[in-house]
Amino acid sequence: MPFSFILEAQDTGSAARAGRMVAGAAPGTAGVREVPTPAFMPVGTAGSVKTLTPDELRAAGCDILLANTYHLSLRPGVDTVRRMGGLHEFMGWPGAILTDSGGFQVMSLSPLRKVTDAGVEFRSHLDGSRAVLTPEDAVRIQDALGADIAMSLDELVEAGAAAPAVREAVDRTLDWAARGLAERERLRGAGRGTMALFGINQGGADPAERRRCFERLGELPFDGFALGGLWVGEGRTLGLDMVEHDCGAFPSDRPRYLMGVGHPVDVIEAVARGADLFDCVLPTRNARRGTVFISTGRLVVKNAVYAHDPRPLDPACDCYTCRRFSRAYLRHLFAAGELLGMRLASIHAVHHMLQLVRRAREAILAGCFAAFRKQSLEAFRSGDTIVPAPPSGDGPRAPTSKRRTTGAGLERPARA
Amino acid sequence: MPFSFILEAQDTGSAARAGRMVAGAAPGTAGVREVPTPAFMPVGTAGSVKTLTPDELRAAGCDILLANTYHLSLRPGVDTVRRMGGLHEFMGWPGAILTDSGGFQVMSLSPLRKVTDAGVEFRSHLDGSRAVLTPEDAVRIQDALGADIAMSLDELVEAGAAAPAVREAVDRTLDWAARGLAERERLRGAGRGTMALFGINQGGADPAERRRCFERLGELPFDGFALGGLWVGEGRTLGLDMVEHDCGAFPSDRPRYLMGVGHPVDVIEAVARGADLFDCVLPTRNARRGTVFISTGRLVVKNAVYAHDPRPLDPACDCYTCRRFSRAYLRHLFAAGELLGMRLASIHAVHHMLQLVRRAREAILAGCFAAFRKQSLEAFRSGDTIVPAPPSGDGPRAPTSKRRTTGAGLERPARA
Repeated sequence: MPFSFILEAQDTGSAARAGRMVAGAAPGTAGVREVPTPAFMPVGTAGSVKTLTPDELRAAGCDILLANTYHLSLRPGVDTVRRMGGLHEFMGWPGAILTDSGGFQVMSLSPLRKVTDAGVEFRSHLDGSRAVLTPEDAVRIQDALGADIAMSLDELVEAGAAAPAVREAVDRTLDWAARGLAERERLRGAGRGTMALFGINQGGADPAERRRCFERLGELPFDGFALGGLWVGEGRTLGLDMVEHDCGAFPSDRPRYLMGVGHPVDVIEAVARGADLFDCVLPTRNARRGTVFISTGRLVVKNAVYAHDPRPLDPACDCYTCRRFSRAYLRHLFAAGELLGMRLASIHAVHHMLQLVRRAREAILAGCFAAFRKQSLEAFRSGDTIVPAPPSGDGPRAPTSKRRTTGAGLERPARA
Repeated sequence: MPFSFILEAQDTGSAARAGRMVAGAAPGTAGVREVPTPAFMPVGTAGSVKTLTPDELRAAGCDILLANTYHLSLRPGVDTVRRMGGLHEFMGWPGAILTDSGGFQVMSLSPLRKVTDAGVEFRSHLDGSRAVLTPEDAVRIQDALGADIAMSLDELVEAGAAAPAVREAVDRTLDWAARGLAERERLRGAGRGTMALFGINQGGADPAERRRCFERLGELPFDGFALGGLWVGEGRTLGLDMVEHDCGAFPSDRPRYLMGVGHPVDVIEAVARGADLFDCVLPTRNARRGTVFISTGRLVVKNAVYAHDPRPLDPACDCYTCRRFSRAYLRHLFAAGELLGMRLASIHAVHHMLQLVRRAREAILAGCFAAFRKQSLEAFRSGDTIVPAPPSGDGPRAPTSKRRTTGAGLERPARA
């Protein structure tokens, strides 16, 4: 069964929409994988969403995750993943997987890389070995990994790149897009290549170049389209303008993937402009460092002000971490360098983003997206509860004798 | 309700026994905590069994864990733990908790310590601050942490210490034991001190000194007795001789705790000699470094020979890790430095030890401990499955082209 996208609802007051991606079962894998949109993809760089099990991702509401082709190709290698039954089987993940093309990681991690019309030449950041990644390689590798959705190889330019460089990157991206599609056709002729393939729109923050790129990209039979080259330093306002611009040009019957965006405010605003799919390492990377997004802002739980705070990370959250543990405990775990702290914060971080897009979807379906958008953004900007706990009254170094009789007053409130 | 120990069965062919510790509910905590014995305690040094949640410990069959008084006193501090409702509430652990006295950690971790009759003077290994730990402090601190079972402060000597040093340590341990009990009585007079208190037998590897120690220790109203000063370099044979000797002297109506022992062979042999309770960081510390005990020996899963091994860590194990993931995946996680590898290996390590003591208990109750002991030891020494997977036939670096058509043959076998 081929990949499909069903548009389920369109908001009337904005470009926000709710849909459903259905990924056909790949050979040797079980069943069809459905992804309601808007959707957020936690990032499983090297075959695991750092610190988390597949069951924790499922419990947090995850339907699809992103895995990095570049990392997996270098280690454990595509051959190992294939021999172990493909990426789903290897990592024990029953949901959908989107793989990137590897192009972005080559550009950002390799100590040496050279872009030619043929492809990208680079050195491994692990052992320095030299390799070439062509648009055809990118498609073949993602097929071998067993991705449900593969990405076309594109060329990126940095924010503020000169017009000729942007133009050249657009031309090359378009050429590579066609070559990637041709390679998938070849694979399909050999009984493989069942995965969806998404094209990536480029052109930086230049609306004319992005339009020129999509005029040709949109003619190609991609299963979805991605917004590339954004959130690389151009700023939120300009970035969101580009999202509005691209989504206005993209066909409504195919999913739209805004790459590398995961700040709650950005996600809400991009959904309002018509984006369906997101990924970002930010929530989980921050979490491992002791900072999480909660419904009312950004909480640095490793800070000493939370040493005696009996509240959960987010009183409005029902994730495992927030149902079971206090800020005081998490603060202690980070202070003591306990890995459980990273885990518990990551569980919240993933759950928070997944619930945010789920609630956006429900609001779109219920016809109240405008209210959801306003309330979510207001709450996020409020900073509520991101202050020391009020009941304690004294500092974290209060003498034991003073506290002995008041412990009961600090009990964590019962939670539903 | 006070602490109690019920002896449920005594093996006829050895000194092995099955029992049940019942810890009375401490003020502010919920319900009674039961611990069937023999029991193994995972170590939660700083308020977490490294990388694991309370639910994972429960799922592995854990009824009781050990927490380190020294670490928790320094960070987050006893005051914080009390203010947050005690250690159970703080770390979200509903089962029983045994705390050590802090004495062993002071001796092994502090950069400077001086033992006098009064107690131990030491510097914090975290900030160098100077502190004194007396037998009374040890009991007060463990009470404040909310332990179900507290340990008396004892003095350790190193393996091979001269006879006068051993004698002096025994005398001091006996003096401190009486002072600790008196302090608990004082606490009980003030409505606290509900926890059980265990005395620790010392005397190194000298049977006469251990007997002399217990002649006085055994007269004191401790709720249980521990075997101290063993597995510090004296060797397994001598260590097990001391276990046999001590357990022969200890009263049968109180639990016996062999401190710091967690190698599967040691645990089985010590159970056969009458020990009821064990703790050790070895299984989980090894696991975080990529080595686990399985039923057939010691598996170094991070080794390259497992790169394509589709089998679980232990084909005979039903832990979460063994039900869901292959050695190949775990090997990859360790090679890539992914924290999930530490977690999954830790889950297996804890589960393996807990199931080992549970099976020993079931065998004692069923009257077939001799057969269990023989089979377990034979299996552990067999080394079965601790070799590269047979179906593959070629090394982990086989070229892709050779493997493409044989992937199906490498599928992991279905598991119950």
